[in-house]
Amino acid sequence: MSKKVITLGEIMLRLSPEGYQRFVQANKYTAVYGGSEANTAISLANFGLGVSFVTKLPKNEIANACINYLRQYGVDVSNIIRGGDRMGIYFLEHGASQRPSKVVYDRRNSSMALAEEEEFDWDGIFKDADWFHFSGITPAISTNAALICERACKEAKKRGITISCDINYRKSLWTLEEASVIFKKLCDYVDVLSGINTIDYMNALLGISPDLSKFPSDTSECEIVAKTLMDTYDLKFVTTTFRKSISASDNDFSAMLYCKEGKFYSKQYSMHIVDRV
Amino acid sequence: MSKKVITLGEIMLRLSPEGYQRFVQANKYTAVYGGSEANTAISLANFGLGVSFVTKLPKNEIANACINYLRQYGVDVSNIIRGGDRMGIYFLEHGASQRPSKVVYDRRNSSMALAEEEEFDWDGIFKDADWFHFSGITPAISTNAALICERACKEAKKRGITISCDINYRKSLWTLEEASVIFKKLCDYVDVLSGINTIDYMNALLGISPDLSKFPSDTSECEIVAKTLMDTYDLKFVTTTFRKSISASDNDFSAMLYCKEGKFYSKQYSMHIVDRV
Amino acid sequence: MSKKVITLGEIMLRLSPEGYQRFVQANKYTAVYGGSEANTAISLANFGLGVSFVTKLPKNEIANACINYLRQYGVDVSNIIRGGDRMGIYFLEHGASQRPSKVVYDRRNSSMALAEEEEFDWDGIFKDADWFHFSGITPAISTNAALICERACKEAKKRGITISCDINYRKSLWTLEEASVIFKKLCDYVDVLSGINTIDYMNALLGISPDLSKFPSDTSECEIVAKTLMDTYDLKFVTTTFRKSISASDNDFSAMLYCKEGKFYSKQYSMHIVDRV
Amino acid sequence: MSKKVITLGEIMLRLSPEGYQRFVQANKYTAVYGGSEANTAISLANFGLGVSFVTKLPKNEIANACINYLRQYGVDVSNIIRGGDRMGIYFLEHGASQRPSKVVYDRRNSSMALAEEEEFDWDGIFKDADWFHFSGITPAISTNAALICERACKEAKKRGITISCDINYRKSLWTLEEASVIFKKLCDYVDVLSGINTIDYMNALLGISPDLSKFPSDTSECEIVAKTLMDTYDLKFVTTTFRKSISASDNDFSAMLYCKEGKFYSKQYSMHIVDRV
Amino acid sequence: MSKKVITLGEIMLRLSPEGYQRFVQANKYTAVYGGSEANTAISLANFGLGVSFVTKLPKNEIANACINYLRQYGVDVSNIIRGGDRMGIYFLEHGASQRPSKVVYDRRNSSMALAEEEEFDWDGIFKDADWFHFSGITPAISTNAALICERACKEAKKRGITISCDINYRKSLWTLEEASVIFKKLCDYVDVLSGINTIDYMNALLGISPDLSKFPSDTSECEIVAKTLMDTYDLKFVTTTFRKSISASDNDFSAMLYCKEGKFYSKQYSMHIVDRV
Amino acid sequence: MSKKVITLGEIMLRLSPEGYQRFVQANKYTAVYGGSEANTAISLANFGLGVSFVTKLPKNEIANACINYLRQYGVDVSNIIRGGDRMGIYFLEHGASQRPSKVVYDRRNSSMALAEEEEFDWDGIFKDADWFHFSGITPAISTNAALICERACKEAKKRGITISCDINYRKSLWTLEEASVIFKKLCDYVDVLSGINTIDYMNALLGISPDLSKFPSDTSECEIVAKTLMDTYDLKFVTTTFRKSISASDNDFSAMLYCKEGKFYSKQYSMHIVDRV
Repeated sequence: MSKKVITLGEIMLRLSPEGYQRFVQANKYTAVYGGSEANTAISLANFGLGVSFVTKLPKNEIANACINYLRQYGVDVSNIIRGGDRMGIYFLEHGASQRPSKVVYDRRNSSMALAEEEEFDWDGIFKDADWFHFSGITPAISTNAALICERACKEAKKRGITISCDINYRKSLWTLEEASVIFKKLCDYVDVLSGINTIDYMNALLGISPDLSKFPSDTSECEIVAKTLMDTYDLKFVTTTFRKSISASDNDFSAMLYCKEGKFYSKQYSMHIVDRV
Repeated sequence: MSKKVITLGEIMLRLSPEGYQRFVQANKYTAVYGGSEANTAISLANFGLGVSFVTKLPKNEIANACINYLRQYGVDVSNIIRGGDRMGIYFLEHGASQRPSKVVYDRRNSSMALAEEEEFDWDGIFKDADWFHFSGITPAISTNAALICERACKEAKKRGITISCDINYRKSLWTLEEASVIFKKLCDYVDVLSGINTIDYMNALLGISPDLSKFPSDTSECEIVAKTLMDTYDLKFVTTTFRKSISASDNDFSAMLYCKEGKFYSKQYSMHIVDRV
Repeated sequence: MSKKVITLGEIMLRLSPEGYQRFVQANKYTAVYGGSEANTAISLANFGLGVSFVTKLPKNEIANACINYLRQYGVDVSNIIRGGDRMGIYFLEHGASQRPSKVVYDRRNSSMALAEEEEFDWDGIFKDADWFHFSGITPAISTNAALICERACKEAKKRGITISCDINYRKSLWTLEEASVIFKKLCDYVDVLSGINTIDYMNALLGISPDLSKFPSDTSECEIVAKTLMDTYDLKFVTTTFRKSISASDNDFSAMLYCKEGKFYSKQYSMHIVDRV
Repeated sequence: MSKKVITLGEIMLRLSPEGYQRFVQANKYTAVYGGSEANTAISLANFGLGVSFVTKLPKNEIANACINYLRQYGVDVSNIIRGGDRMGIYFLEHGASQRPSKVVYDRRNSSMALAEEEEFDWDGIFKDADWFHFSGITPAISTNAALICERACKEAKKRGITISCDINYRKSLWTLEEASVIFKKLCDYVDVLSGINTIDYMNALLGISPDLSKFPSDTSECEIVAKTLMDTYDLKFVTTTFRKSISASDNDFSAMLYCKEGKFYSKQYSMHIVDRV
Repeated sequence: MSKKVITLGEIMLRLSPEGYQRFVQANKYTAVYGGSEANTAISLANFGLGVSFVTKLPKNEIANACINYLRQYGVDVSNIIRGGDRMGIYFLEHGASQRPSKVVYDRRNSSMALAEEEEFDWDGIFKDADWFHFSGITPAISTNAALICERACKEAKKRGITISCDINYRKSLWTLEEASVIFKKLCDYVDVLSGINTIDYMNALLGISPDLSKFPSDTSECEIVAKTLMDTYDLKFVTTTFRKSISASDNDFSAMLYCKEGKFYSKQYSMHIVDRV
Repeated sequence: MSKKVITLGEIMLRLSPEGYQRFVQANKYTAVYGGSEANTAISLANFGLGVSFVTKLPKNEIANACINYLRQYGVDVSNIIRGGDRMGIYFLEHGASQRPSKVVYDRRNSSMALAEEEEFDWDGIFKDADWFHFSGITPAISTNAALICERACKEAKKRGITISCDINYRKSLWTLEEASVIFKKLCDYVDVLSGINTIDYMNALLGISPDLSKFPSDTSECEIVAKTLMDTYDLKFVTTTFRKSISASDNDFSAMLYCKEGKFYSKQYSMHIVDRV
């Protein structure tokens, strides 16, 4: 039987100048809709899983377009609630040569940031669900969003649903201290934790100080982090990826899976990144 | 010697799907920057006048692009102050056949809406200025913007600068009552008032009730409005345009100028409107 | 409770040169997916109805894109079966001034044209359905498609589902005689018949010869056709639209509904058609 | 005096999503026309040779556009016969990073695949011709196309025209066995054979088993293949290129020419491949 | 047997901003190649006639692209000579509503303007030719171009080739007096003269003064012009078109043919002009 | 206080086919405006300096667009004089893989090439200026442009303004001998000389013959050139950049500054060049 996955987070309108144009040159913007959990939902739908994305979006045509975008790729949108003022927007200028990419955020006061946990139909959302996923960005959006995240974890937990979290840290949204306070609570619910390779974040969260000097060529630091996480929380799996830059556009990637039974490394694979501007 | 005109208002980023695409179909948006007083500034610069546009814009690259846009057409941008959170945005879908155009506004909490009158350097702004122009949209944006508008009028008045106002009414921004309260004050400063053909607005403002049954084929209603305005306020000129629809894309336009010396009508001219989507 | 509508037919890839470019000038094609019943499905979904489109499409990425296209607009695609060789394609060049539009069809041997009625899960398709719709194009595609159409009518009929048919005639696909043979059978199932204003088609179908001289300024011909249809078949409603050309881009439209209780005309409305090339 | 070259094969419409877009994201397709022998014809015309491309295309506007495309680059199109149902089409999605390119073929029942050898005016085609070229794709299209190929070889041979063949193997079109049966016949006519570096194809064709372990760093395998081909058939020249990948976008290329007088290697040159999407 | 037509003139690169963009907004230009006689050549080739365009173009890649453009539509380009400095260029901004179209010419010192009559191979050009066509623009380009035109007329005349001329007057290139001096000579060679409805030009050329008051509703003025032309020169046919504007985008067209046997009028036809920007 | 910089030179319209299209494939051109000194002006304005670009441009809309382009980036355009016939144009085709970029120049008889030194208001241009910059291209355009350059140097010198020159050599515009004659004069005015790494140019200019065999891995050749220049002319600084190619798209850059106080090298930095076509 096909698995049903629930992801929860914010989805924003991303506007990018065409090609390598700079903001000051642009008179066209390419529009896509994205966010960590929405992207995960689309990827899982592409792999054939049943997946439902949960968020709050305003009652306007731009949000309708966003919903159609998700639906196009086969993501269930019936758990998206409507209301509030606006969608978050961000502007992305693609970097070129030594000029880095630039992002201008305009995401304050979005419908999701101001949503209330009572607005969501938690019974409906988790009906028949097997898995719940969120990222470290969702609780960082606003106090409300952090409460929604915790509520979702509780609702999933009490139904025996597996919970995964990609604990990535966004310094533009909150401090390490703020993040640690929230995640010390959220980690109690999580079964599968990924994205643990931001070492100073793990340090703040766990109060440990791994030696970074040999990271990531020596991946043992991450093993220490993983072990400490397993010791501290009731996690089933801890995972992370490793990236080794060969050149600006060539990287070697590998991944680690850490669990009670031991640690497992994927083989390394090379990826040549083409700019998809 | 060339005249120097000051216009004050909000300029927004306008995002439109290409051609006749609907929002739900769009993956590209054409970006321009516009607003009543910014458009006026560009037009006057095209006619060769010196013109400076006054507003507040955030310190980000999207606002920089907006400033470059104004500068490109020869508008002076040295009186634009920088700060606050965001530019106002609106999304415009072009209508086609019997489907009307649609607008989605996302303009709340813009830098201009939250600006304070003390932030502007009024001496610098009005140095060597001959004319000050604003529209009925600027005071409608926010309480702050209405105060800025009144302050600008005062500063212009005390320097003997001619003040013009296109008193157009935006029902999405305020009620007739709110507008009337503000404009009863602002009209005391205005020398040249245009855009008086929204009859129920004039009614609310002036407490008169012209008979609309024959308007605009019979333009005498507008003459009554103009006369009452001249009687009520210390206006030098009252002007308006008339539009008579021949078909969806063909219209006859004319204009009236009303002053102490009498009333003057332009000849009627026809305009075939091409969709510039 | 929301209605559930089933539409059945072929959906093709439509490729059009940009703007008013001719085929011989084109190096870009705009791709959309369309067909009479698929378009009906999208429109009904836009109006908020539950709607499922039934067809057969090949197992390739172009057909996947077509399915995503339908899904984007909220059409249920779970009744589309996969297999066969190819999707039908047609190329459309937009006309301009006195140059007419041109169509090049490449639709032979499509998956739908070669589908077999047994391949479809008729129980699943009509579960909870309230309405079944097809057009005169579907049975014209191929002998197999005509059989599928008849089978769908039988399956809908035996479940008490309302059946509507837009009986439009495509002379590029079959002769009036071929069409009449098939539709004499299909009309036995239909409850709501529209598109009856192709008079020589009605003539062939019904063996009547209405006087065309005053059509469509005098709509009484269509009333005769409608009455004869009601007398011949067990129809509940017969409808049609009327179009009166004012100019190349302006038309007056109206509609007639004919039923046992009498005949009803909509008011006439004008439509200015904008080329959406 | 300028040489006149005849090339014979199928030319298809190639439709590619813009940039790195995937099929499921595309709403524009870039259209070009291509095929091994048509591309060769355009290249030779660019170098200034007289060249005529021979094929069969349907009598429709898409085929007209294809003919104009060839004519634009100076290829003679007077030997293209018209008729049949359709042009072959293929859809190409450009790969990016670790995602490979994808091709969806829709080429069955093309005019060229169903053409008959008697339809071509062989006298007219080979009048004043110096060279005849075809590739291993043409005989793979259909039984008819293989017969046309053989007939063309016979007609060229009896006029003393040099015959070249790029014997490339397309596994999507036929098996090694099918290809070998046909090419054992066709090689009897060929003077210049290129593209011999698909070793298992050569093996199937010649019944030899060169040791692949050191290929292509050690090019001696290809010399064995070339020698065996020269021993088996009445070939004047056997040629091939070698490609050594340095990285995803950097390759070293070289070429070998093998003839009775000996073997000759070009110097190696490096090529940085830019994605031309 | 198919007719062979020779046309002679200048072909320029035309660069237009996309859609209704103004020059000051444009960052893309659409490029086509055009000129009165080149356009005539392409039209005749589209109708299936053999046609060769004669001009001089520089030896550079932009001119190569122009030649490919002509060749694409089946125009013979073997009589185009290469040399000189540059192609003429003109920039065209499409008008919209009451804003007229704008043209910026940059055509001085073009290869054709500075060409010499001896450079052309007149024997080769007129071999097997049945018809020679030029317009009133060609002799207006430069003194050299006028001499080339006269030489071409002489060469055609002595070979018994029919000569047609669309005598249109370009006031940006020369005065009525300059044009009359040249055309008094050129008309001695012409068999078919069209474009005679620029009445003051005909007046300057013929020294007659037709009454313009009723033109073109009363076409008799054109008959007088035609008759005077037939009396003055040895013309076989005089033709012209008439255009009656119904609205900005709707016109009625008709045509007159005047010859010894009498005068003939086409029926009037309406044309709705769509902007092809 | 902010510095004010004057740059003087020619600005041309650059037209490039989109992406990697070749000229013979292009039907769209991307338009930008560029030239060595205009690009310098835009860069300096981006860094926040006051900068005025001096040139002559024709009185037409294409030149207006060019002026708006400069103004958009904050460059002062009040010292641009208007008149003459045309802007210079160049066409640029982007190279790809082993195909090099191509340029077609059409810059003869431009307004700047034919300008006279008396046309410029030198007092106005250099009022409040701190720095004057030009490149080796400006005096190469025409005899007039060389005279304007020399005049500008004199005017700057007598006002005590610092003069910088990027002495780059364009072989398509003049010979080494012609360049040397002019630059022997111009170097007398220059304070800061850059771009000295075209060794044979330096040789022609200075009559020295540095040993090129180890350049640029051994940068001592450039030190010899710099020292000789300092000995010969009254220069304050001599600078140059060094480029070491790692691969087609990766380069190491460094720079040298040579002055009386000694020589200084920047650290080397790597740059991955992305094609911005």
